Amino acid sequence: MSKTLEALRNYTKEIVPASLEILKNYLRLQSVSAQHKDIPETVKFVAEAIEEAAGETQILDDLGGNPVVYGFFAAGKDGDATKTLLFYNHYDVQPPEPLDEWNTDAFEPTVVDGKLFARGAADNKGDLIARLTAIKVLNEVEGGLPCNIKFLIEGEEEIGSPNLIPYIVKYKELFQADACIWEFGGKDEKDRISMVAGIKGMAYMELTSVGADIDMHSSVGAYVDNAAWRLVQALATMKNKQNEILVEGFFDGIDKPKEAEKQAVQAMPFNEEAISELYGLKRPLITAAKGEDPREAMVFQPTMTICGLESGYTGEGAKTVLPKSAKVKLDCRLVPGQDPDHILQCIEKHLETHGFHDITVSLLNGQKAYRSDFSHPFIAHVMQTAKDAYQKETILAPNSAGTGPMYIFGKELQFPIVSTGVGWAGSKAHAPNESIRLQDFEQGVVHMAYMLSGLPAALQTSENMKVK
Amino acid sequence: MSKTLEALRNYTKEIVPASLEILKNYLRLQSVSAQHKDIPETVKFVAEAIEEAAGETQILDDLGGNPVVYGFFAAGKDGDATKTLLFYNHYDVQPPEPLDEWNTDAFEPTVVDGKLFARGAADNKGDLIARLTAIKVLNEVEGGLPCNIKFLIEGEEEIGSPNLIPYIVKYKELFQADACIWEFGGKDEKDRISMVAGIKGMAYMELTSVGADIDMHSSVGAYVDNAAWRLVQALATMKNKQNEILVEGFFDGIDKPKEAEKQAVQAMPFNEEAISELYGLKRPLITAAKGEDPREAMVFQPTMTICGLESGYTGEGAKTVLPKSAKVKLDCRLVPGQDPDHILQCIEKHLETHGFHDITVSLLNGQKAYRSDFSHPFIAHVMQTAKDAYQKETILAPNSAGTGPMYIFGKELQFPIVSTGVGWAGSKAHAPNESIRLQDFEQGVVHMAYMLSGLPAALQTSENMKVK
Repeated sequence: MSKTLEALRNYTKEIVPASLEILKNYLRLQSVSAQHKDIPETVKFVAEAIEEAAGETQILDDLGGNPVVYGFFAAGKDGDATKTLLFYNHYDVQPPEPLDEWNTDAFEPTVVDGKLFARGAADNKGDLIARLTAIKVLNEVEGGLPCNIKFLIEGEEEIGSPNLIPYIVKYKELFQADACIWEFGGKDEKDRISMVAGIKGMAYMELTSVGADIDMHSSVGAYVDNAAWRLVQALATMKNKQNEILVEGFFDGIDKPKEAEKQAVQAMPFNEEAISELYGLKRPLITAAKGEDPREAMVFQPTMTICGLESGYTGEGAKTVLPKSAKVKLDCRLVPGQDPDHILQCIEKHLETHGFHDITVSLLNGQKAYRSDFSHPFIAHVMQTAKDAYQKETILAPNSAGTGPMYIFGKELQFPIVSTGVGWAGSKAHAPNESIRLQDFEQGVVHMAYMLSGLPAALQTSENMKVK
Repeated sequence: MSKTLEALRNYTKEIVPASLEILKNYLRLQSVSAQHKDIPETVKFVAEAIEEAAGETQILDDLGGNPVVYGFFAAGKDGDATKTLLFYNHYDVQPPEPLDEWNTDAFEPTVVDGKLFARGAADNKGDLIARLTAIKVLNEVEGGLPCNIKFLIEGEEEIGSPNLIPYIVKYKELFQADACIWEFGGKDEKDRISMVAGIKGMAYMELTSVGADIDMHSSVGAYVDNAAWRLVQALATMKNKQNEILVEGFFDGIDKPKEAEKQAVQAMPFNEEAISELYGLKRPLITAAKGEDPREAMVFQPTMTICGLESGYTGEGAKTVLPKSAKVKLDCRLVPGQDPDHILQCIEKHLETHGFHDITVSLLNGQKAYRSDFSHPFIAHVMQTAKDAYQKETILAPNSAGTGPMYIFGKELQFPIVSTGVGWAGSKAHAPNESIRLQDFEQGVVHMAYMLSGLPAALQTSENMKVK
């Protein structure tokens, strides 16, 4: 082990207990963006956490939506003030529902068996506190920071960052950096370090069928059209039993994967058995029936997922009602080349063509996909330091199966992006009983400190390459 | 107007205000059987209301389920103690949800514009109090009752009377009568008196699709099978876009309508425009597309109605979850000859045949349909007295589009049954803002008192006919 890494590791161990107390206070804030909860309190908390780590802050709140928190830490006297790294994080979390499936209170962080349980522990509050801790570790161990460090911490990631673009466009200079570490990441089911250099896009829609002004007694089903049946029939025309998407134009314009990307996907591990056990899957993977590689589906194929269905009476027992309306939440994950607005148009046209002109569609969240050039030296640096810090195999995917507002960063700020973080395969982001493992948190701090420590040299390599 | 009718009418007007206060107290009890609410309190209330009207009561509670209240009023000294009428009512109500669509508190009865609003006002609490009031009126005006009167008031009608059959079988002697007035009825959209001599059956089912043990992040939709999509695909095989039921065997054994029944249906009014306006329908009737008569569909055709759909996240905004399960509540209204257990088997077999063996079906409520012989003199008597009391056109349907446990009454007690009551076309039974009109309540009391007054003579006619 290098002397630097050992010193970083030792001080990290010392400081982590205090950091976990800060994280617990952060997790107690119920910052559910979809439900407009605790936003001002959380913005204040985040700014104070940056200031407590000796950083400067600005609250950007002039362009609508939940405020964006900007944080800045200057390079130390021995550091390289010409180099800057940007951390992207978000302070909002997914709704905690269904509450009755949590083993502990979703907003009362609880340590059980070496894991910290709370909504947002993995996605994405744990990562912010780990990164701030890494800064404290570098200041203590190296007497200052190796380069400038910036933070962009937004509050609407979980609802699709609907207001982020104008902030990035207006504050482009403020956020300018040489490289970017994205919000999340972690270990896979075999504890390999899993990183991505891109992200899928999204077209998240709500389809609504309205049959009447009021709910009716279900006996009128003999002659009254049923909004729920109508929605079911419409959905059944959009995807078939074999899980093939049938909407015309849906696959328009998709970028053909490059050979290097295909190879990277082939190098990715995929353990169907472990995934099946983790989620308790009752059925085979849908890729099996289609003869597809699930890794290729994850990276290169768009999806159309029902996230929610709602109509009529869903409580206990038998209520005999003919519902006035029915609603579905539909999440299409997009790949580079797809445009959420075009997807919306295709679905509207599909409904029209199939006789469902009365079903309305609204786009709740539209984002394009993004892949950065994963052969950039910055990415190699993040990978190598991860190998050194974790002493584990590391994996790089051309893009994740998940989504974030990476497209606008890549387009406006033009830097390489790697996503890595303190999660694990059982983190259950977006589901009940979300958690991180305390050991992963500590190792994540060490990795970030170590990665930053060698960053100016790595970026220098990058510039040398550009000159060539 | 006959002298009797005028006297009944005058005293009714006097006593109705006090009866409405009793009804309001009854409506304040939240006796939602599907939610196991207020049952003991409501049983006590009902028994006390019968006793307050000078009847005797028995609480039958030895065969499981919510107690059945039996009430008995003996014929007066000038009455015919060899004749008995049975009233069937229920003290349970439908769930009040969705609560935010009520203009007044669902369980705080409120009079607005001559209407009394509360859950259960029309279905079925108003009718019980109207019938007890009619007994008080007869005692005052005629100095006693014309015949014996019995009540059977159960507490599980809204969940399909799952425990009623053993009570009727065991207490057959107690409930023995010459004729029966069923729980409900009222005026149609043109204020005609609408009565039925039968009822549809029901097979109310819950279909559940389970894909995993936990909700997942929706990005795994690239390879994980989705329980909601699966349920949608399964449902789409059970009914087509034209609203035709496709389940094999579903129509097995249906009784061919008799000529007299067909004629009765042709004599029934049906105002599509009024119905469309009442519910605020957005689409044409489904019978129009199929070239069917909605009245025939109502009486002679079974249905398959989605009453509720539930899966994943249904709150505000965009939660990106792949739900672990999906559920549908399906209400099939049956006609004479159909058997709910057979319907369940057909649906299970259909799912199996179409590759959905993993979707489970449970029958929450199974009841057979029933049609009494609507040419019986008792029915003519109820119709004639309605014409006299209301001075309105009266209509008799062979069976209603709705359901109740009539089959077991007809089979075990073998008497003619007519359903009539104090509702109106805008009563919104089972929906928010349920109501009765105060004027209908008063007229309903008069009709019941007048009908009872002439009942022994009418039943005598019936016996004479039998002798022939």
